Amino acid sequence: MPAHLITMLGTGLIGDFYTMTLHGQRGRDRVRVVYSRSEERGAAFSQRWGIPEQTTDIAAAVNHPETDVIVIGLPNFLHEEAIALAAKAGKAVLCTKPLGRTAEEAKRMLDMVEGAGVFAGYLEDLCYTPKTLKALKAVRGGAIGDVTWVRSRETHPGPHSAWFWDGRLTGGGAIIDLGCHCIEIIRGFVGKGNRPVEVLCHTDTLVHPIADEDNAIALIRFESGAIGQFEVSWTFRGGMDLRDEVAGTHGTIWMNHFLRTGFEMFTAGSSGGYVAEKAETAAGWLFPVGDEVSELGYVDMFSDMFDALDSGRAPMETFYDGYLVNSIMDAAYRSAKSRAWEPVTAEWRGGSTKRIASEPELYEGQVVIKREILPDGRHKLILKDPVSGDFTDRVVAGA
Amino acid sequence: MPAHLITMLGTGLIGDFYTMTLHGQRGRDRVRVVYSRSEERGAAFSQRWGIPEQTTDIAAAVNHPETDVIVIGLPNFLHEEAIALAAKAGKAVLCTKPLGRTAEEAKRMLDMVEGAGVFAGYLEDLCYTPKTLKALKAVRGGAIGDVTWVRSRETHPGPHSAWFWDGRLTGGGAIIDLGCHCIEIIRGFVGKGNRPVEVLCHTDTLVHPIADEDNAIALIRFESGAIGQFEVSWTFRGGMDLRDEVAGTHGTIWMNHFLRTGFEMFTAGSSGGYVAEKAETAAGWLFPVGDEVSELGYVDMFSDMFDALDSGRAPMETFYDGYLVNSIMDAAYRSAKSRAWEPVTAEWRGGSTKRIASEPELYEGQVVIKREILPDGRHKLILKDPVSGDFTDRVVAGA
Amino acid sequence: MPAHLITMLGTGLIGDFYTMTLHGQRGRDRVRVVYSRSEERGAAFSQRWGIPEQTTDIAAAVNHPETDVIVIGLPNFLHEEAIALAAKAGKAVLCTKPLGRTAEEAKRMLDMVEGAGVFAGYLEDLCYTPKTLKALKAVRGGAIGDVTWVRSRETHPGPHSAWFWDGRLTGGGAIIDLGCHCIEIIRGFVGKGNRPVEVLCHTDTLVHPIADEDNAIALIRFESGAIGQFEVSWTFRGGMDLRDEVAGTHGTIWMNHFLRTGFEMFTAGSSGGYVAEKAETAAGWLFPVGDEVSELGYVDMFSDMFDALDSGRAPMETFYDGYLVNSIMDAAYRSAKSRAWEPVTAEWRGGSTKRIASEPELYEGQVVIKREILPDGRHKLILKDPVSGDFTDRVVAGA
Amino acid sequence: MPAHLITMLGTGLIGDFYTMTLHGQRGRDRVRVVYSRSEERGAAFSQRWGIPEQTTDIAAAVNHPETDVIVIGLPNFLHEEAIALAAKAGKAVLCTKPLGRTAEEAKRMLDMVEGAGVFAGYLEDLCYTPKTLKALKAVRGGAIGDVTWVRSRETHPGPHSAWFWDGRLTGGGAIIDLGCHCIEIIRGFVGKGNRPVEVLCHTDTLVHPIADEDNAIALIRFESGAIGQFEVSWTFRGGMDLRDEVAGTHGTIWMNHFLRTGFEMFTAGSSGGYVAEKAETAAGWLFPVGDEVSELGYVDMFSDMFDALDSGRAPMETFYDGYLVNSIMDAAYRSAKSRAWEPVTAEWRGGSTKRIASEPELYEGQVVIKREILPDGRHKLILKDPVSGDFTDRVVAGA
Repeated sequence: MPAHLITMLGTGLIGDFYTMTLHGQRGRDRVRVVYSRSEERGAAFSQRWGIPEQTTDIAAAVNHPETDVIVIGLPNFLHEEAIALAAKAGKAVLCTKPLGRTAEEAKRMLDMVEGAGVFAGYLEDLCYTPKTLKALKAVRGGAIGDVTWVRSRETHPGPHSAWFWDGRLTGGGAIIDLGCHCIEIIRGFVGKGNRPVEVLCHTDTLVHPIADEDNAIALIRFESGAIGQFEVSWTFRGGMDLRDEVAGTHGTIWMNHFLRTGFEMFTAGSSGGYVAEKAETAAGWLFPVGDEVSELGYVDMFSDMFDALDSGRAPMETFYDGYLVNSIMDAAYRSAKSRAWEPVTAEWRGGSTKRIASEPELYEGQVVIKREILPDGRHKLILKDPVSGDFTDRVVAGA
Repeated sequence: MPAHLITMLGTGLIGDFYTMTLHGQRGRDRVRVVYSRSEERGAAFSQRWGIPEQTTDIAAAVNHPETDVIVIGLPNFLHEEAIALAAKAGKAVLCTKPLGRTAEEAKRMLDMVEGAGVFAGYLEDLCYTPKTLKALKAVRGGAIGDVTWVRSRETHPGPHSAWFWDGRLTGGGAIIDLGCHCIEIIRGFVGKGNRPVEVLCHTDTLVHPIADEDNAIALIRFESGAIGQFEVSWTFRGGMDLRDEVAGTHGTIWMNHFLRTGFEMFTAGSSGGYVAEKAETAAGWLFPVGDEVSELGYVDMFSDMFDALDSGRAPMETFYDGYLVNSIMDAAYRSAKSRAWEPVTAEWRGGSTKRIASEPELYEGQVVIKREILPDGRHKLILKDPVSGDFTDRVVAGA
Repeated sequence: MPAHLITMLGTGLIGDFYTMTLHGQRGRDRVRVVYSRSEERGAAFSQRWGIPEQTTDIAAAVNHPETDVIVIGLPNFLHEEAIALAAKAGKAVLCTKPLGRTAEEAKRMLDMVEGAGVFAGYLEDLCYTPKTLKALKAVRGGAIGDVTWVRSRETHPGPHSAWFWDGRLTGGGAIIDLGCHCIEIIRGFVGKGNRPVEVLCHTDTLVHPIADEDNAIALIRFESGAIGQFEVSWTFRGGMDLRDEVAGTHGTIWMNHFLRTGFEMFTAGSSGGYVAEKAETAAGWLFPVGDEVSELGYVDMFSDMFDALDSGRAPMETFYDGYLVNSIMDAAYRSAKSRAWEPVTAEWRGGSTKRIASEPELYEGQVVIKREILPDGRHKLILKDPVSGDFTDRVVAGA
Repeated sequence: MPAHLITMLGTGLIGDFYTMTLHGQRGRDRVRVVYSRSEERGAAFSQRWGIPEQTTDIAAAVNHPETDVIVIGLPNFLHEEAIALAAKAGKAVLCTKPLGRTAEEAKRMLDMVEGAGVFAGYLEDLCYTPKTLKALKAVRGGAIGDVTWVRSRETHPGPHSAWFWDGRLTGGGAIIDLGCHCIEIIRGFVGKGNRPVEVLCHTDTLVHPIADEDNAIALIRFESGAIGQFEVSWTFRGGMDLRDEVAGTHGTIWMNHFLRTGFEMFTAGSSGGYVAEKAETAAGWLFPVGDEVSELGYVDMFSDMFDALDSGRAPMETFYDGYLVNSIMDAAYRSAKSRAWEPVTAEWRGGSTKRIASEPELYEGQVVIKREILPDGRHKLILKDPVSGDFTDRVVAGA
């Protein structure tokens, strides 16, 4: 039952979520040292989470003699430096999303960890929500047939921290902040061996006085013909909307991870406290989440990462996945400019996936377009004559 | 309290819905004669709804001496002929959706009724659902600020009648069948005077062995910058999904018209009866709708049409609206082929709409990107320096 | 297609709802004269609804030469006088709920209309909501087997008008205001021929400084063994909660008529308008209802009443039903005092209903307690030895 | 960071849930030995969960030299023997719900652990669901004012194992199986220092051919005036319904723990796998739960137990709580027989709780019954004259 001692880089909201998870329940892994650019924030963070040591020297943090895992919860523009240090130290490294600001940057980080031979995990929590994990199992078990269309949405009124708004530091706007989640959720459902071929994207800055997009939608066309559709926004009003939908030839899955999870509260006064991440009001009808770090996937994510590390297998989300996500986002940004479909140009390590099954059923030489079961048990067929192209109804005895 | 006697053209599912509505509750308008291409279907229809007369002669039906209103519930390729007859007879005409198979065809019908000077209404029921009407009132009253993005979705497992599947008779696939609803719902929310500028569309035939699209998504960019997004499918599994969402600068509206309306039924056996339009199962968890003709907008639609006719005003939905819908669908089909944005080329009769408001707020010379109220009443500002482009956080006293 | 001219008695909220319904859509019945105790309120009401005449003389209103139907929307303590006038005038009379303040008073009104031989309808709108009507049809069609337990809940923060709070004028508190709805909904689902045998009730005044109950729960035991459970409150926070649940041996029905009907709105500012009956806030997350008079049953209720009148049949809800409701409420109030079950002592006109079916299935001489289908198709039986009373599991081949 | 080695007693469904939780995520506590009455089930269980040792000798299991904690997942009638062994061994003991079959039996177990001075926890998982824990925090923080009424419901189609159906082994029917959960949830929300005074209960056996109740409802009146209402059933169709509702003077909380948690799946075919505890179908619309052991409270429950043990504090749920639950169930069974309220006769260790606040507000000498804010900002008061008892409306300027 090995345990790990961790160097935590960063003391923002994500650092809090990570450490709350790692130190939560009966977990056996612990943050040993935390790095913050600010002494004051580092001290507060250490005290909040009972961490023995803090430093403002990132190299010292990474090279701490007792830690074997580096967790990166820093702003996007600081990932590369941190990963370089970790790779050099030969330690396992877990990096928050998005991996890079561009695919090029992400590729360099991928090369670093592969070059150094260190364990590397991509911390994409929303791929690990309990609903997502169970849905993935159902999809792989065939519950909805072939996947045809996956929708993933993440929207809220905009980030809490200043640096998120500065495209120079992040690589973009709502896509780079939120779209990375959606893309990886989509890839899970269409299958990770299903090559992302091209992207069609529209972005706009509708509300906030910034240079980057505060709204975007994109379609990703995969080799099988399946479409991944992501929608992101920094202008949604009402909290945080986290919904995924998976359509298949034989079924449908709808998941709501945040605003409507069976927990509803009305309060006439002020509840005087934290309701949920990105909640907009503290009175009226509120929709809290029971256990945020569990519902948002942090718990299962770190379990997978540390179990993978212990057992010598790859985690569910790797740096290669992070690099692919950046490649798809790059194509989305190119498409928003060209106003047309743009190819995904990443190095592809997956295999090949067949087109969604469409062998038409035949009935007395006619193509069966649709089969409905009538209340009396008979079947109503809609048939197409392959020669004339004419369509007809026919009611026949049931199977 | 004038009443109207109606010529009903067509005896399919839509004819049933129309007549159920007209003859429902304490209504004062009545179908006087029904036309069907089939004597047998006409007879069954007359008996079902207590209609005194039926005919297989469309001209006789239109020219019936006692009727003053022609309601067209015929397949798309028969609209033009029927409207020509009604215009010639000088009678009011109400035509089901879509108006035409193309904008060109729709324009001819528009010209006919305008030339003849007859009252003409476009029977777009989903613009009249009680939820939509109330939401429109809220939006116009400013409840959600400026509209930024409207999503409208209609999906189900595919039409019940053979002719729907034949693009030669209908003008297309899922877009022509379902997208026409969505487009007009969207236009209501962004404002009918808001010019649709261009369309980006993706279509595919993922499941059914047909030539036309069984799945599509499109974006419509309006003059104000607002985006209308429609999603249609003939491959959805689980019933009929009718949802609309309106995002605004100060609020959000979510409407579910069909599958989740607060009515849930589990049955272990067969309920042996009609559950709801496009329901897929008769056991397990079912989601019926209370009063379908009311919830789907038929009741309010016909009230508007006949009240408009009585009072000499235009109805909420006119043939010009129908023509615009066809124009937008034409652009969608062009875009699906060109794989890029395509302009909407319709004759524009509306006015001009301003860009979504975005006068940035200033604080001590800095641009306010976001303002959050903290639990202690203070405000947290995210500010952008207009010179350096740098972003900072600042906490200030509340207003 | 006969139409009716109506005398409306009362200009409160219920008069508004009634007249909005009667004059709504393409209805053919019209309010001809309105009576109000206050000239000012009568004038405003007439103007609001386009009513030709108003009066403060109740007898003149009832005896108006052109009207043939009297609709009573007056406070409870004025019902008897109004019904006496209508009966004397020989006109059809429709009376709002509850019929009386006690069963004794209700019985006198029942006797009056039966003595005079006039058409009399009990205006219990919530028995007519579209969801309720469709659910009743499903239950009668056998969709959920034998009904075992019906729950009906109506709660809100308390009435808007002063007289509602005065038990001397109404006959009680939340039970008399809201319980009457629930009782009649329950009777519909267990079957109107199913005799209500006895009642167990708890009442309390938990929040408002009044003498009558602001919270109550009661169980009604019917002859079949089915239980009706009603819950009413004048202290609910968050709007108006109108939910009904029907449990059967083979199925379940859940209905939400008001707060969760698939219509959700978030507004950051004031929407500056009417949201829904008994809504508590005008900002944050709101849950409007599309068309209140339809969703709350008013439309179907008046259609049934006038159609019954036209066709010479009894309406779905009669004065006898109103009298039974009062009898059950009387038993509830007695039970709350005696703190034990109390019999329902009404004159019973219905028939007799069998005990809920419970012929046990046998398997090799053992009683089958439960049968579950396993994933592999086999059946798991839980069996009881009729001699020893011992329970065992057995897995057998499927049917 | 101490870890514990556990003796697990019992290999049924509850043993699986417990061990899945203990061995789940990155937990540091492990089951060291498992006891089963059946060698075969013990072997399968050990293999399923990677447990080094198994035995059919309960004393050997309890006295295993390496374990320090005994977890009891045995049928009700075996709890006393197991606790006696654990107390004698001087080991910490965690016992599943209900503690005893009667309060008398529960009291003996309480005395045993108190006499032996061992740590004892009552494994009431549903008090620990993430939603419940967050709601408790909100209630204690004042978000909904004084609690007036708590509803807790647990219903499903009946237990999976034979012994559950034998009242001789369990102590009763649906109340003893499910009511124990509800009672403890209710006590949490009204406050554990709020004395349960008396109980009113109705039970019936409506469907299954058994001697014990398959349906029950009860009211618990607490010292503060708050009511706890529990509803349990073994005849619910549609899965497992786990809902709690908390009403307060200033707010409302609704929690759905199982059937409607934002996860919806439609499958046309067989999903061929486990959907959720007590699910009734494997096709059509299904409502899985993301992570059952988390959502049902097992994870937080064991964290509390082991953290309490490590830090020397009492757990949230103790044997005294279990004894109180049995005392309330005893009163419920007595009430079902006497058909009237029955006192709770348990030894009370809590304090005293004030009546729900009801100091009436006064306005110019009149009692304010209700205060509503009008759209124009004015306040509408409903006032009661303390002398005459008359009620009036008054509209005044807002505060």
